Amino acid sequence: MVDVCYLVPGVGLPNDEQARRERVANELTPDHVDVTVVEADGPGPTSIESAVEEYWCVVGSMKTAHRIQSEFDALVIGCFGDPGIRALRELLSIPVVGPAEATIHTAAMIADRFTWLTILEATAPMSYEQAHEHHLSDRCVSVRSVDAPVESIDHGDDDLVERMVREGKAAVEEDGAEALFPGCMSLSFAQRHDEIEERVGVPFLDPASIALEQAAAWARHGVAQSSKTYPEPKFEKLGDLLGGSAAAADD
Amino acid sequence: MVDVCYLVPGVGLPNDEQARRERVANELTPDHVDVTVVEADGPGPTSIESAVEEYWCVVGSMKTAHRIQSEFDALVIGCFGDPGIRALRELLSIPVVGPAEATIHTAAMIADRFTWLTILEATAPMSYEQAHEHHLSDRCVSVRSVDAPVESIDHGDDDLVERMVREGKAAVEEDGAEALFPGCMSLSFAQRHDEIEERVGVPFLDPASIALEQAAAWARHGVAQSSKTYPEPKFEKLGDLLGGSAAAADD
Amino acid sequence: MVDVCYLVPGVGLPNDEQARRERVANELTPDHVDVTVVEADGPGPTSIESAVEEYWCVVGSMKTAHRIQSEFDALVIGCFGDPGIRALRELLSIPVVGPAEATIHTAAMIADRFTWLTILEATAPMSYEQAHEHHLSDRCVSVRSVDAPVESIDHGDDDLVERMVREGKAAVEEDGAEALFPGCMSLSFAQRHDEIEERVGVPFLDPASIALEQAAAWARHGVAQSSKTYPEPKFEKLGDLLGGSAAAADD
Amino acid sequence: MVDVCYLVPGVGLPNDEQARRERVANELTPDHVDVTVVEADGPGPTSIESAVEEYWCVVGSMKTAHRIQSEFDALVIGCFGDPGIRALRELLSIPVVGPAEATIHTAAMIADRFTWLTILEATAPMSYEQAHEHHLSDRCVSVRSVDAPVESIDHGDDDLVERMVREGKAAVEEDGAEALFPGCMSLSFAQRHDEIEERVGVPFLDPASIALEQAAAWARHGVAQSSKTYPEPKFEKLGDLLGGSAAAADD
Amino acid sequence: MVDVCYLVPGVGLPNDEQARRERVANELTPDHVDVTVVEADGPGPTSIESAVEEYWCVVGSMKTAHRIQSEFDALVIGCFGDPGIRALRELLSIPVVGPAEATIHTAAMIADRFTWLTILEATAPMSYEQAHEHHLSDRCVSVRSVDAPVESIDHGDDDLVERMVREGKAAVEEDGAEALFPGCMSLSFAQRHDEIEERVGVPFLDPASIALEQAAAWARHGVAQSSKTYPEPKFEKLGDLLGGSAAAADD
Amino acid sequence: MVDVCYLVPGVGLPNDEQARRERVANELTPDHVDVTVVEADGPGPTSIESAVEEYWCVVGSMKTAHRIQSEFDALVIGCFGDPGIRALRELLSIPVVGPAEATIHTAAMIADRFTWLTILEATAPMSYEQAHEHHLSDRCVSVRSVDAPVESIDHGDDDLVERMVREGKAAVEEDGAEALFPGCMSLSFAQRHDEIEERVGVPFLDPASIALEQAAAWARHGVAQSSKTYPEPKFEKLGDLLGGSAAAADD
Repeated sequence: MVDVCYLVPGVGLPNDEQARRERVANELTPDHVDVTVVEADGPGPTSIESAVEEYWCVVGSMKTAHRIQSEFDALVIGCFGDPGIRALRELLSIPVVGPAEATIHTAAMIADRFTWLTILEATAPMSYEQAHEHHLSDRCVSVRSVDAPVESIDHGDDDLVERMVREGKAAVEEDGAEALFPGCMSLSFAQRHDEIEERVGVPFLDPASIALEQAAAWARHGVAQSSKTYPEPKFEKLGDLLGGSAAAADD
Repeated sequence: MVDVCYLVPGVGLPNDEQARRERVANELTPDHVDVTVVEADGPGPTSIESAVEEYWCVVGSMKTAHRIQSEFDALVIGCFGDPGIRALRELLSIPVVGPAEATIHTAAMIADRFTWLTILEATAPMSYEQAHEHHLSDRCVSVRSVDAPVESIDHGDDDLVERMVREGKAAVEEDGAEALFPGCMSLSFAQRHDEIEERVGVPFLDPASIALEQAAAWARHGVAQSSKTYPEPKFEKLGDLLGGSAAAADD
Repeated sequence: MVDVCYLVPGVGLPNDEQARRERVANELTPDHVDVTVVEADGPGPTSIESAVEEYWCVVGSMKTAHRIQSEFDALVIGCFGDPGIRALRELLSIPVVGPAEATIHTAAMIADRFTWLTILEATAPMSYEQAHEHHLSDRCVSVRSVDAPVESIDHGDDDLVERMVREGKAAVEEDGAEALFPGCMSLSFAQRHDEIEERVGVPFLDPASIALEQAAAWARHGVAQSSKTYPEPKFEKLGDLLGGSAAAADD
Repeated sequence: MVDVCYLVPGVGLPNDEQARRERVANELTPDHVDVTVVEADGPGPTSIESAVEEYWCVVGSMKTAHRIQSEFDALVIGCFGDPGIRALRELLSIPVVGPAEATIHTAAMIADRFTWLTILEATAPMSYEQAHEHHLSDRCVSVRSVDAPVESIDHGDDDLVERMVREGKAAVEEDGAEALFPGCMSLSFAQRHDEIEERVGVPFLDPASIALEQAAAWARHGVAQSSKTYPEPKFEKLGDLLGGSAAAADD
Repeated sequence: MVDVCYLVPGVGLPNDEQARRERVANELTPDHVDVTVVEADGPGPTSIESAVEEYWCVVGSMKTAHRIQSEFDALVIGCFGDPGIRALRELLSIPVVGPAEATIHTAAMIADRFTWLTILEATAPMSYEQAHEHHLSDRCVSVRSVDAPVESIDHGDDDLVERMVREGKAAVEEDGAEALFPGCMSLSFAQRHDEIEERVGVPFLDPASIALEQAAAWARHGVAQSSKTYPEPKFEKLGDLLGGSAAAADD
Repeated sequence: MVDVCYLVPGVGLPNDEQARRERVANELTPDHVDVTVVEADGPGPTSIESAVEEYWCVVGSMKTAHRIQSEFDALVIGCFGDPGIRALRELLSIPVVGPAEATIHTAAMIADRFTWLTILEATAPMSYEQAHEHHLSDRCVSVRSVDAPVESIDHGDDDLVERMVREGKAAVEEDGAEALFPGCMSLSFAQRHDEIEERVGVPFLDPASIALEQAAAWARHGVAQSSKTYPEPKFEKLGDLLGGSAAAADD
């Protein structure tokens, strides 16, 4: 059995939605994988749509991830901004998977050029920078907004699907996109990718399944972040962050 | 069940080694995955260590892959040069996975900078170009030869392991490598990565497990090459290549 | 006298068209250059419009080129995809010239930014990748299709010229192109470049004359592919490809 | 008068050192500039030498910066990691200056190729990524460690100066560096750059003076981060972060 | 006091306009900075709108700059083409500032992506190349012409302001620009940036104030071009260029 | 007949050396090509080893080239710095060839990675920037100095050949170079490339023959710089540069 933690970095996800996502996550993964959705300790934002909110959520993510890591074989960051990925990789010894990182690399494998559908005009610049961070920005022909504030996203929202289809088609026709993905885990967990893919005519990737499968595969094979790239921090300095006993345990 | 074809593009792999690889491949993958090692129709080279041999092997790969694709859910090219990957992706409707592509992208996720251990001085330029092809050459700090002609590689060869450890350590110390991988499936199937990783102190990726897991995951989730990037060829022109009936079946 | 082989990698070019191309090629080159158009041994495609067809044609190209190389001072690959250029450069000791490589570099010298007119929507992704392969993709502002399946191309086709003019003008006005070239040797041998250049108002390069002149100049001055980049293959492994006697001659 | 806030993101800087830095900062800037050194609200790390510590400190930086911004014309982040620069630029309407950003760009103006002297082997990967973040990594020929944990740095430490001179000379001779800078504000505030520059023979930049002068100039001329790149967050969601009254004031 | 020379490389700037620019320059800079506008010795062009004119003006710039450098602490090249910047940096020991270099780097700090408003369609290719020269071309989303031959530019020309607003808005909406700047010092000295910025809604940088402030800051802190990047020429060879006495003084 | 002007931009080349170069140039080119070596009108430097000297020489080059262009079909700039290439391309209607541009692109075609042998440590930074200017800097693995001030270069200097062999071998072994070229036309006209190539074992290009052959081929086929990239200057402004009658002739 491979135990994967899907860590939601924000706070306030309704219990039923959290349960739905855990159910979906376990349906997406093979039988030998067990996914647990964990919400980070607060305080933090109710949704993550800015760099401010990304930074705000990471302290809680670090605390929670560090506390629970011994229960899991791998951790997936539950937000497409991959908030705090470098920090979490330093902090944890289990593999840390970012859905954006995993999805961008997958898009670059199945297509030469892709478009990123982001939630808001305001998040487009961050999306371009994320593609650059992964050294794959010249494969990202465009970032397009589907005008979907995170808290408005509902998996039953057909109008949102229409906007994704419309922007997806425009990406293919005007920007030369050969593959698409949504830049938000709420869009991913809406699980409407099959119909969008069929209507647009190019692959429409699902970040949730990609990230979870990668986490399970990495855990099974002992693949994890390099400690040269992500050196272990000096735990004796982190007592106030992690709590004395937890930090002590790392020494 | 997910059926994965691991297609060996060269000819003349001894039966027992082919059987050993199939056994290893099935041990590397989860229970729900069934890997079959298939050798391409000849003619072709006995090992692939040059562009000449890469091109030579692809015609057979295309014929074989096209003939058997209906039996499989995904295909892994059994050579780290990913020979003919663009052609196979055009030709097949099942997902086609290249071990080099999958491994390079994985290395770029677990580390900022990696070194590629290639078999020969003569294959180093091709390795640099492969990294460039994937737009990740600025993450590849060096390609180093372990001086191992393919047909000489034996999984019990401790001297070869020594050379890999020595070049791996040099890569870390002199070139700043933070992760490593072997650029040859025979090196991968030697399955000595754990001890090398332990001795060098940075992740040493195993292309076989990475490629097979990716193939299984892609097949499970309907992820495949974009038909915009890899358009279906005009099958009516390919009769002499594929045989009349096979081509007809695609029409 | 400099003897240049123009090797047509596909099969089935009508004799009169082959003769016309040989005549054009000799008119394009100075008196001291003698160009022979040679068709590759089959089997192979009748035209090359996909990666499948590129790979299919290369085995024949390698056989033919190897067999006849002693009669020539340089070889030009007779297809704008430069199919098998790395393999041919390894295999041959005479200089091997790719029309795409030569034309892309020339375009990058006479202009900062250029557009590539490709035959089909389906070949556009390969064209972008070819520009990338030569590390000059940031000079290629667009690839545009002129909708001309190779076998339909006729040098007397005024409608095709109109399409090239129309796409060329659009490239200049919408994409900022400062030079153009056709991505197909049949388009090149149509020899309509002067009128297109005049009507569009920016240089419209002719790949045939560029490649042939480069081959002649390289041959005259002993310029050829580096054996470090393109190491000689192990000929003893290539007997089945090249035929016993040919391979023996290389030993 | 231009009022510049130099915001120390960590906690626990001794009062006398804080006073010394404020005095140095005011000596470095022209008479019409008044620099105030402000320590961020905790909790946070005592020094910032990892991504974990960068993320840990930003929540306090955001709170403090937001609370006091009305008293200042510009803000300089008091750490060479520029921790939280995207978040602070979204959050504040006054210009936010990062010492690393300002110094990297200055180095790229006075030299074609530079070396970054970082504090520890462990911070080198982050330094390379910061150079990449600013799209100037191909100007950074090397990152070299001077082996100086932040809390050990003392402006009277001649041995540290020797290490900086030694690594600086090696950078020039072995890596081709044409300019240098220290990747740490404690190294900068040691104010030993003149003697190092003289002994190494290439410019050795002082991040403190560069960042402070830039902040003053930007404030004087109304230059600030673009609100398209750094859109204002939805303040109504940030009550728990900023405190009710502060957030209300932004509405 | 910091004495800055603003060197106009062309000839024939009317005396009153030269006086106006000197007055503006001194208003833009702090009290401790004294800017003198100096016109280069001729012969040279009356305005600089081509590479021909750039090269033509540099001989005079070198002569004048070398002759007067002892009177100044820093030199700003008074043309956005930064004509002769590498030569002037070799020749002078005081810091040499190029307005384009300073502005492009500033734009890259305040925004991820910017647009350059150039004077003419004909100067657009040079502008793209200048961005590339500074390794920041992937941050320059477009160069747009405002159709303003230098000698026609008048700071009271409202129609020109309209064209800058119109192109600026188009850059934001169509090209994704997040900041703008004018690629001409006459446009800069028109000093209409505030109203353009307000109407377009993104930062509109003023090259004059950026370059002058940078020159003053560099002079104050001893920051200057690296002599490794810009090695001192052999002055004994430059007698005919600089005049015997001036060259002798450098020996 | 194709008439090619080889324009020496500096002054004072001894008559016998000028005659020798003209003889060599004509031996290098086919019979239908006639090369004339022309020395630019002064004033100018006696050799070009700095940006100062590059700029100094261009005014004379422009005057001379413009005056004599009607006598020639193409012009080669007789200095590896390609001084004033953008200006000359704007000014002339005949094709302008830069030896560095032509050689760098040729090196990138025959090898993946090359080393540039420059005359002096002091010219290395300019060489790196030239490679960058042509967007091929990632193919230039190193620039190495052979310590040869231009005026000291003699084609009979065996010691210089030794230094070129020594640096060439080091480039291959330490830097991974697969091809080499000398960054100076005096080194090229020494015509010692064959023995150096034989001793080092990788191609050692001859810029003179490459540039002259390219000029002849371009002239024969009507290939020339794009007037979009290099727009014709306003000749009415250039009277003082070109002389009244010459400028008038362009109107």
